[in-house]
Amino acid sequence: MEAQTRQFERRLADLKSRLLLMAATAEAMLDEAIAALVNRNEDLAVRVPEYENNLNRMQVEIDDVVAALIATHQPVAVDLRFVIAVTRINSELERIGDLVVNILESVPVLVNLPPLKPLIDIPRMAVLARRMVNRGLDAFVKGDASLAEAVIRSDDEIDALKDQVLRELLTYMMADAHAIERALHLILVSRHLERIGDHATNIAEDVIYLVQGRDARHPRTPRADEAPSA
Amino acid sequence: MEAQTRQFERRLADLKSRLLLMAATAEAMLDEAIAALVNRNEDLAVRVPEYENNLNRMQVEIDDVVAALIATHQPVAVDLRFVIAVTRINSELERIGDLVVNILESVPVLVNLPPLKPLIDIPRMAVLARRMVNRGLDAFVKGDASLAEAVIRSDDEIDALKDQVLRELLTYMMADAHAIERALHLILVSRHLERIGDHATNIAEDVIYLVQGRDARHPRTPRADEAPSA
Repeated sequence: MEAQTRQFERRLADLKSRLLLMAATAEAMLDEAIAALVNRNEDLAVRVPEYENNLNRMQVEIDDVVAALIATHQPVAVDLRFVIAVTRINSELERIGDLVVNILESVPVLVNLPPLKPLIDIPRMAVLARRMVNRGLDAFVKGDASLAEAVIRSDDEIDALKDQVLRELLTYMMADAHAIERALHLILVSRHLERIGDHATNIAEDVIYLVQGRDARHPRTPRADEAPSA
Repeated sequence: MEAQTRQFERRLADLKSRLLLMAATAEAMLDEAIAALVNRNEDLAVRVPEYENNLNRMQVEIDDVVAALIATHQPVAVDLRFVIAVTRINSELERIGDLVVNILESVPVLVNLPPLKPLIDIPRMAVLARRMVNRGLDAFVKGDASLAEAVIRSDDEIDALKDQVLRELLTYMMADAHAIERALHLILVSRHLERIGDHATNIAEDVIYLVQGRDARHPRTPRADEAPSA
């Protein structure tokens, strides 16, 4: 029985390392895609497809480990919440990888046309998004709900930048029809970055669910028949 | 023991009905948002926020039922796969609701400006997306992998429409700076619809995982050290 407990603990630790590796891969993908965009050099992102394959493989393997773990150890309470959080974070990280691939689709278009403007807000959004992913995983590994709450709060900043990018690029589009295609692609890139922030927010909410056993996604509002806790 | 089996079966049936209700809610939301857009009448979508609250509540409740069910019944094999598929489909449906809310954000902008053009491809994309969600859930309830595969194939159609919408609206934007804001919002709406199709595809892949026990998300490629099955 004690051997089984040790095996269970080992498997949980293994799942943690696997998620950390996935997050590091997603972050490297994002760095390379943005470097290719900012430096106008597609070659800087040649490893992105390989990274994405790795992410997809890791996702399937983690789900397999989780299924085996539930079947063998039948976790309850906090261990069960941990396992559910792992499957959710797993799926968020895979989606982040997909979004980096979406960003990369705009890179050849933008690199093959003259630069529209120096990129400032988009790299800033990328730094924010990357940091949110990184801190979300850090909060998960440390079980740190207040770090997770900081991640959730920083989502407002990336949303504000997305709106600012949209406003600025709309003026470029209106001023010059030749700017439209490039501006549109930059708007799409900013939307993908904002969604990476959303997925990091989801990860942070999963951490709060794990640590506090309450659901930060959609906090329950008291029903009409429930007395308010005054 | 038999009583416990019956309770387990009842709970699985309960989860199925809950997912069907979520899907019906998401479909109704999409219908109303598109009706508001096509008929240029925001009032046609007044119930959407209420629907979204319902979806969020249903999602949390389903996760609670799943957690209780795993803790009580410790399902294995096909039952475990069913429970995992439920949690995944649950999260896909909630995201579909979020995307309808995103679509709705463009409606006031578009309704308060003169119509840019008769909307043809966007309502067509909405019909396709709705049908994919509907059939994905149908495939889930019936355990029908070939229906799920049909859903996955129809994702190409919605992707092609998205590209067509982009090309057409780009020409509007280039021809007239006054068209830019409206065209951009229509492009964003088409992207949200395409992503609803992606989530329906994810649901269909979950059904294949459930029925065939193989992962349709990222089929494993044989490794170099594995002999091909000739």
